[in-house]
Amino acid sequence: MPDVRERRLEALGNLLTREQLDGLLVSGPANIRYLCGFSGSSGLLFVSHSERVLITDYRYIAQSAEEVGSIARVVIEEQSLWSGLWQQLAAMPGVKVCGFEAAYLVHRDFQRLLEQGSRWQWRPAMGLVEVWREKKDATEVAAIRDAVACAEAALEMTVGRIKAGMSEREIAGVLESSLRHKGSEDYAFASIVASGPNSAKPHARPTSRVLGKGELLLLDFGMRIGGYVSDITRTFIAGKPDAKQREVYEVVRVANERASASVRAGMLGRDADRLARGYIEERGFGEWFGHSLGHGIGLEVHEAPRLARTAETALAEGAVVTVEPGIYLPEWGGVRIEDDVHLGAAGVEVLTRFPRELLAVGKT
Amino acid sequence: MPDVRERRLEALGNLLTREQLDGLLVSGPANIRYLCGFSGSSGLLFVSHSERVLITDYRYIAQSAEEVGSIARVVIEEQSLWSGLWQQLAAMPGVKVCGFEAAYLVHRDFQRLLEQGSRWQWRPAMGLVEVWREKKDATEVAAIRDAVACAEAALEMTVGRIKAGMSEREIAGVLESSLRHKGSEDYAFASIVASGPNSAKPHARPTSRVLGKGELLLLDFGMRIGGYVSDITRTFIAGKPDAKQREVYEVVRVANERASASVRAGMLGRDADRLARGYIEERGFGEWFGHSLGHGIGLEVHEAPRLARTAETALAEGAVVTVEPGIYLPEWGGVRIEDDVHLGAAGVEVLTRFPRELLAVGKT
Repeated sequence: MPDVRERRLEALGNLLTREQLDGLLVSGPANIRYLCGFSGSSGLLFVSHSERVLITDYRYIAQSAEEVGSIARVVIEEQSLWSGLWQQLAAMPGVKVCGFEAAYLVHRDFQRLLEQGSRWQWRPAMGLVEVWREKKDATEVAAIRDAVACAEAALEMTVGRIKAGMSEREIAGVLESSLRHKGSEDYAFASIVASGPNSAKPHARPTSRVLGKGELLLLDFGMRIGGYVSDITRTFIAGKPDAKQREVYEVVRVANERASASVRAGMLGRDADRLARGYIEERGFGEWFGHSLGHGIGLEVHEAPRLARTAETALAEGAVVTVEPGIYLPEWGGVRIEDDVHLGAAGVEVLTRFPRELLAVGKT
Repeated sequence: MPDVRERRLEALGNLLTREQLDGLLVSGPANIRYLCGFSGSSGLLFVSHSERVLITDYRYIAQSAEEVGSIARVVIEEQSLWSGLWQQLAAMPGVKVCGFEAAYLVHRDFQRLLEQGSRWQWRPAMGLVEVWREKKDATEVAAIRDAVACAEAALEMTVGRIKAGMSEREIAGVLESSLRHKGSEDYAFASIVASGPNSAKPHARPTSRVLGKGELLLLDFGMRIGGYVSDITRTFIAGKPDAKQREVYEVVRVANERASASVRAGMLGRDADRLARGYIEERGFGEWFGHSLGHGIGLEVHEAPRLARTAETALAEGAVVTVEPGIYLPEWGGVRIEDDVHLGAAGVEVLTRFPRELLAVGKT
């Protein structure tokens, strides 16, 4: 089987021709990983019609050799990645007009292109690689499916170990060690563990607050397997729910169910968002669902497409997206239920299987 | 006691006058946090002589109100932070010439300044706030001291629970849940847990590899308390060290000791680096210490100053820096010992107290 990176780099060659570029400077970490396999935090990848060179530093000698193999030439640069880049480019006589990634290059580095890199012409490029990354192939979907399954196993372990009286941070520790136990390579994003009124903050970070009886507990966490992430949220109740908790939960659950059942490749991002938002509005909670319905996941936890009121583009066939409606009532609390959904050619598959009913935690 | 942020924002006002700017667009997350307290992942802070406005989104309504208080006006923007910014600026008639942070603004957003923001003049600014952040005040040093002490307590918990036969990822899980137990607000960076030959990779990520008897185990991890981080590395031995492990360890230990004893505020970064590197070279391992000696820590895990061969600037009085010599022998393994050191006016204080001798783990 040919290396999938070989196919991607060939496609990039064709794209360079179409865009009339002699080369592309890839600086977005997930784009670098997608094209050549390197997952370190410090690297520049330059791809021309005849050359592929990854420039990184000493800390990644062994890792870059293992990950990149023969797909690109690896240069270990002692001083700075940029001086390494000028040297490499100077040895490529046919290279004159180059693209750079406008969404990743900070202005200071753009100035380097104009100053030390003034021998070349630089053209901003947007989303060239990201567009491909949106459409997952079978191997990528399998990796995400794996990340989802392992995250669910970790969640099950965690739920059995939560007790009322634990702090949000202690619960985060249990959740995260369970994610590691099930094989997570890192944390795709800062875990959200929010109890009681804290759950009204959609992006709460775990605090020293102790989970009390009768309170909501929202867990939103990522797992990474083979480079690909899952992103799942479940909201639990510490004991028995009261009528309002039950009502709010049920509205979110039905909104999640409706959106997952009807979201399709080809749909506009704003229409997908509408699937859940319409129902939540009907039920009178529209004002309290302030974020968007979801986003793509893959090598990054937030990537194309967007499922949002302002998203005018169609969801690509092959994308894996989150469906995560929520209702947040200030000072009272919040509920969110988030699944990962593959928009395949043969139909939609909800990858997340963890129950969506309101489950109790912290029984003693 | 006046709010420290008030002092910082006043200083920023003076700086604007000196730089002949009417305002500064702050987009670096740690700079935003330093100036107004907001710690969310999505925000733009604009400061002029008469206005301070933080623009963020729905997810941070409650958090921004709590964290920012009355130090700045908070605007929750429904569409995008950028359209929020144009609206705010349009209501500030005296504001014409504005700085932006060249080290944080990506080229795509720079284009927004030139296009939608063309009513204003934009000037790149570098390191204006970072220079202040390098000099920690007493409260900041206290927060880092706390992060160090809690990290050490977590390390002690972890060491007692490591067994030969555990995988690097399981050990990472134990370490990270201990960090949470001791109060860590998040992970300042991806934990490094590297066993045997993997420890030769300075930036290894935890894998499924199992710790074997007689192997080195390198742990490099961060903790965050009150926004400030610690950054500590210790290398252990699973059982008894052989002669070579003992020799390499001892060279690194002495290099760490010498550098910690002699590093001073006012010293050039490259001279500080030399303190450890000179000794490692003398002992014949210079080739295998390929990274730099250290870096500043604070709200970020990598901030000014740099202690590196190429660092031509002096270490500021008040900085807290890491001292982290290492020796990495490909396929054999590596040793690093990393401490956090405060370069105070009254002298140097090594904040880390965890033993620096080669300790055994995994006794059964």
